[in-house]
Amino acid sequence: MKAVVLEAPGRASLATVAEPQTHRDDEVLLRVRKIGLCGSDLNSFRGRNPLVTFPRIPGHEVAATIAELNPKYPDWLPGMDVTLSPYTNCGRCASCLRSRPNACQFNETLGVQRDGALTEFITARVDRLYRANLSLKQLCLVEPLTVGFHAAARGRASAGEPVAVFGCGGVGLGAVAGCAFRGATVIGLDLDDDKLAIARKAGATHIVNTAQADVKKELAELTNGRGPDVIIEAIGLPHTFRAAVELVAFTGRVVYIGYAKEEVAYETRLFVQKELDILGSRNALPGDFRDVIRMLEADRFPVDEAVTHVVPMEEVPGILDAWSREPARFSKIMINVS
Amino acid sequence: MKAVVLEAPGRASLATVAEPQTHRDDEVLLRVRKIGLCGSDLNSFRGRNPLVTFPRIPGHEVAATIAELNPKYPDWLPGMDVTLSPYTNCGRCASCLRSRPNACQFNETLGVQRDGALTEFITARVDRLYRANLSLKQLCLVEPLTVGFHAAARGRASAGEPVAVFGCGGVGLGAVAGCAFRGATVIGLDLDDDKLAIARKAGATHIVNTAQADVKKELAELTNGRGPDVIIEAIGLPHTFRAAVELVAFTGRVVYIGYAKEEVAYETRLFVQKELDILGSRNALPGDFRDVIRMLEADRFPVDEAVTHVVPMEEVPGILDAWSREPARFSKIMINVS
Amino acid sequence: MKAVVLEAPGRASLATVAEPQTHRDDEVLLRVRKIGLCGSDLNSFRGRNPLVTFPRIPGHEVAATIAELNPKYPDWLPGMDVTLSPYTNCGRCASCLRSRPNACQFNETLGVQRDGALTEFITARVDRLYRANLSLKQLCLVEPLTVGFHAAARGRASAGEPVAVFGCGGVGLGAVAGCAFRGATVIGLDLDDDKLAIARKAGATHIVNTAQADVKKELAELTNGRGPDVIIEAIGLPHTFRAAVELVAFTGRVVYIGYAKEEVAYETRLFVQKELDILGSRNALPGDFRDVIRMLEADRFPVDEAVTHVVPMEEVPGILDAWSREPARFSKIMINVS
Amino acid sequence: MKAVVLEAPGRASLATVAEPQTHRDDEVLLRVRKIGLCGSDLNSFRGRNPLVTFPRIPGHEVAATIAELNPKYPDWLPGMDVTLSPYTNCGRCASCLRSRPNACQFNETLGVQRDGALTEFITARVDRLYRANLSLKQLCLVEPLTVGFHAAARGRASAGEPVAVFGCGGVGLGAVAGCAFRGATVIGLDLDDDKLAIARKAGATHIVNTAQADVKKELAELTNGRGPDVIIEAIGLPHTFRAAVELVAFTGRVVYIGYAKEEVAYETRLFVQKELDILGSRNALPGDFRDVIRMLEADRFPVDEAVTHVVPMEEVPGILDAWSREPARFSKIMINVS
Repeated sequence: MKAVVLEAPGRASLATVAEPQTHRDDEVLLRVRKIGLCGSDLNSFRGRNPLVTFPRIPGHEVAATIAELNPKYPDWLPGMDVTLSPYTNCGRCASCLRSRPNACQFNETLGVQRDGALTEFITARVDRLYRANLSLKQLCLVEPLTVGFHAAARGRASAGEPVAVFGCGGVGLGAVAGCAFRGATVIGLDLDDDKLAIARKAGATHIVNTAQADVKKELAELTNGRGPDVIIEAIGLPHTFRAAVELVAFTGRVVYIGYAKEEVAYETRLFVQKELDILGSRNALPGDFRDVIRMLEADRFPVDEAVTHVVPMEEVPGILDAWSREPARFSKIMINVS
Repeated sequence: MKAVVLEAPGRASLATVAEPQTHRDDEVLLRVRKIGLCGSDLNSFRGRNPLVTFPRIPGHEVAATIAELNPKYPDWLPGMDVTLSPYTNCGRCASCLRSRPNACQFNETLGVQRDGALTEFITARVDRLYRANLSLKQLCLVEPLTVGFHAAARGRASAGEPVAVFGCGGVGLGAVAGCAFRGATVIGLDLDDDKLAIARKAGATHIVNTAQADVKKELAELTNGRGPDVIIEAIGLPHTFRAAVELVAFTGRVVYIGYAKEEVAYETRLFVQKELDILGSRNALPGDFRDVIRMLEADRFPVDEAVTHVVPMEEVPGILDAWSREPARFSKIMINVS
Repeated sequence: MKAVVLEAPGRASLATVAEPQTHRDDEVLLRVRKIGLCGSDLNSFRGRNPLVTFPRIPGHEVAATIAELNPKYPDWLPGMDVTLSPYTNCGRCASCLRSRPNACQFNETLGVQRDGALTEFITARVDRLYRANLSLKQLCLVEPLTVGFHAAARGRASAGEPVAVFGCGGVGLGAVAGCAFRGATVIGLDLDDDKLAIARKAGATHIVNTAQADVKKELAELTNGRGPDVIIEAIGLPHTFRAAVELVAFTGRVVYIGYAKEEVAYETRLFVQKELDILGSRNALPGDFRDVIRMLEADRFPVDEAVTHVVPMEEVPGILDAWSREPARFSKIMINVS
Repeated sequence: MKAVVLEAPGRASLATVAEPQTHRDDEVLLRVRKIGLCGSDLNSFRGRNPLVTFPRIPGHEVAATIAELNPKYPDWLPGMDVTLSPYTNCGRCASCLRSRPNACQFNETLGVQRDGALTEFITARVDRLYRANLSLKQLCLVEPLTVGFHAAARGRASAGEPVAVFGCGGVGLGAVAGCAFRGATVIGLDLDDDKLAIARKAGATHIVNTAQADVKKELAELTNGRGPDVIIEAIGLPHTFRAAVELVAFTGRVVYIGYAKEEVAYETRLFVQKELDILGSRNALPGDFRDVIRMLEADRFPVDEAVTHVVPMEEVPGILDAWSREPARFSKIMINVS
């Protein structure tokens, strides 16, 4: 069967690989239909993800159709469209014991530590599958949105609270939608007016272009001078990491989703004086998948605007190359597999 | 009446000041009996607390006796021994609106932004008073212990969880006792064997002398290799701030009580990868006062070991001077006022 | 000044009473503008509230204007429109110590245990006041809506969860709005199509007329057969009390706001087998007032439909009489005081 | 291999049954070492459990030794002693979706809906196993204690809070130990002085013999007149079900573990006026198993006093018969299987 394979840093190709032969008795065989690409796939292509070895099949944002009945799971019928959670968890680390498998110390994500889904058939554990009244395109957006929804949950974004989301790209857009889903008053911040326009459609009631505005002043005006109750950082730069701590309200919550490449130096006095909660957010939990599905089923997300490129499998090597050269030109790329 | 007055940085004197004449109708008049000194009083004496202007009467750890009946509050009778919460709160900032007055943006602490209790009579709001079946010496220890109890609560230290407390001085000792009160398995860490011995009496089941031990190895051994579920930092140095984040378990909680004087540079990747909660802890809430009182009433704290010096009011200027020159020689100083 | 006075069960009159002469130093003088009536006022009029003695001035749903400056509270200026929380709390009972003053064992509500606001001037504690960008009519609706908002909070109604509200009268309507504010999917149930129509405007996405529908079947259909995650009972009949426990999902939450006049016999096996949370909900907390204000400021409540009668003070005795005879004919009565 | 089989209501026999032949790839083979009997086993024997059909092998309190390596789980080695969670869960019901598999709508408990462990060999899912530094006798007590620990968790019994446990038999004893483990001040109530004496060893700081004392007065005296913050009902009678609601503090929590055979008629006014949480508690979660193991490892439970009878497998039919005739004569029966 066909697959896209990352051969080496900067080099991808369309290859022929063996079909899955057998599978564990808690798995089913899936025909892959659509795959979304995200920033971590670009990182893998560029050879910048230390967890990826080559060759590696990428792809963890999946819309698929069940290809075969596993007689132990008669509810999951051939022909059903599903999406899936691409994570594993060990069951024994501190995170797993605390019922937070999303942060498993030994997690292996599809397309990162193990081969991904950018191929024609895969096997997947039944307890990782989600079905929904959604189109394949919507199903393929579930997983990327869960990351922002999980950040909204980590931040305990609540009805009526002003929440600022720094960065309205893929992950930030999910955080905007997740906070709006929870009833918060969402302020989206970005440099890019197009992304801000989509953020508004995803639920931001206020948007701030950080290239033009005095962010501190705008946030103060929108929050009676108190600052947002929650700030979700979805950019990954040291100065926005610090700004989140400085601009959030007293006893507010700061959520970090991304990785800053350099160390971040903090005035930790603010942690204590404001009595902050500073919260990492990693991957997502089953409840996040269900919440995203509910939101998409209620048609509350601008699916078409959010997906900027749809291409066939054959074009993936070329588009990875183009994306790597001009990252800002691409937002969400979706691949029609079959 | 007599009072100790900080006249200028490094200079304290015993002075005569006017007695409180009138008071708000929600206040009562108190005769001060004992006052404890803490590190923040030393800071004020040294002129290093930017919130303190001179002259200033210090003192916020108070054991007192009600001196006069306020007829609106017939439950609070003259002769009753009490302690008090030394904080004010504005009622309108983000912290107050979130029912977290301990972190009020406009808090004024007794002895810091307003004159303190190191004098013969003070007035205090009735809703800031606590009575208990405790001696004056115990009452005088309530407030300093609340700070560590609040940190234990912020860290959600839970029964059976391994919790490490970095620093077993005044504040850290309260954190040790607070975590033990909540049923956690407490590991006390300090450079000083005497402090560790008291920590053990306050509830630490394990102690680690950081001058001699490989901290990472010891903590790993005590926690099945996972690291403590909670680390409470009560030292205030950049390297212990960072170590807390590095050594805590996946999905663990790090609590900061103190202020690091310099910026702290973090590898923020750990915030996300471990999905940590990093939590500031400031002052204390009414529930913390009640918990400390319950613990002291149950006689579960080594009061006599924890108070190292007891002096009359006249000796305060001298002992402040001595403390400033040799901070390590003093632990908890308590003053007999009347 | 004028006041409406309940003289005896079934008898109200417009009377002249003394103006407030002095007030505590934490209070301000208010000119009353509008008063809403609720079912508990009707109960008091009928002599069915054992907490009410006669004569008594009713009225606890208040829109007022600050009449005089209290120099200790310079933020609260004469001319400002406000609403207020009509409760007191003792500060010492189990509820108060748990920061749940809404359920104070010794609460005294305006118009119940002490004279209410259906008069020209009242005094009120500053920390019970709320200002907002709202009309007087909206301000007067804040308090009645808080009761349902508090029930939504007690039930932890969450984004995306199906929540059923039994009874869409005054209190139930607030619960519908409160659950919708929190992002839940609200199912409103009532016998009366008019009330259901208003419930829809207040945020119910589904409505069920219980006179015509098979409630069990409808709720099952709307919830994939699982039952609602939360059921809020706002009727007060034994059979709806029981139905809530029978129809709620496994591990769901049942909230009771009202009082059933008779004992309710339960099959308690369901409490355990479903591992339910059965939660009383009483009065409201400051956060509920702020949430209602946010919702009304966002213009998300059908204020005009919800208020069915607006009358001058002179007509109150007559309308109480009419209401007592034909309760079903009246929904929310609002009185223009000045 | 040998097994005890319930043949029909009131009739048990020692029989020969087939050994487990194959097992799912997520299971291991266990040699059963000890089995505890609990009240539900007696119910099954008597034919009073509608979920049990005959013939049925009982037994869900298990100490076992791993008999064979499953190569997929190299951490679980032959010779290891383990205990296990006897529940299944469906993964799709409301409870499972809410991460509360203990209350799965379609749970099948070992020895109830499917054959149990009172035989020589069983297979068990690896993710249901727990290992510990415990003797076989202690391992065999883990599961019964988890039921009370779960109730303590459901009640959110907290450090310093007074908690009353109604009934100090098997389940109640676990609740006493669980509340003590969480730092609560535990008041044990029972008719039987022997059980109260064991409750004291399990962590109750106060005991009340309900045959002799005025329970209301005693509880009031022990709680400053407020009533316990939490009451856990582990008896199952209508009048103790009601008493829990009447005696608990305002805004307190009532937890029900057991089943009252008849309907219970409540004055529901108390639910609302006190703003109670009334909470069912069913089975246990993985965290409860880990907490019980920690407690037993810390040697904080009177294992020998709690187990009143130890018998070989051959005597089970006889002892079931004796137990059924004189239930009060037996407390915890433990069976040596191999």
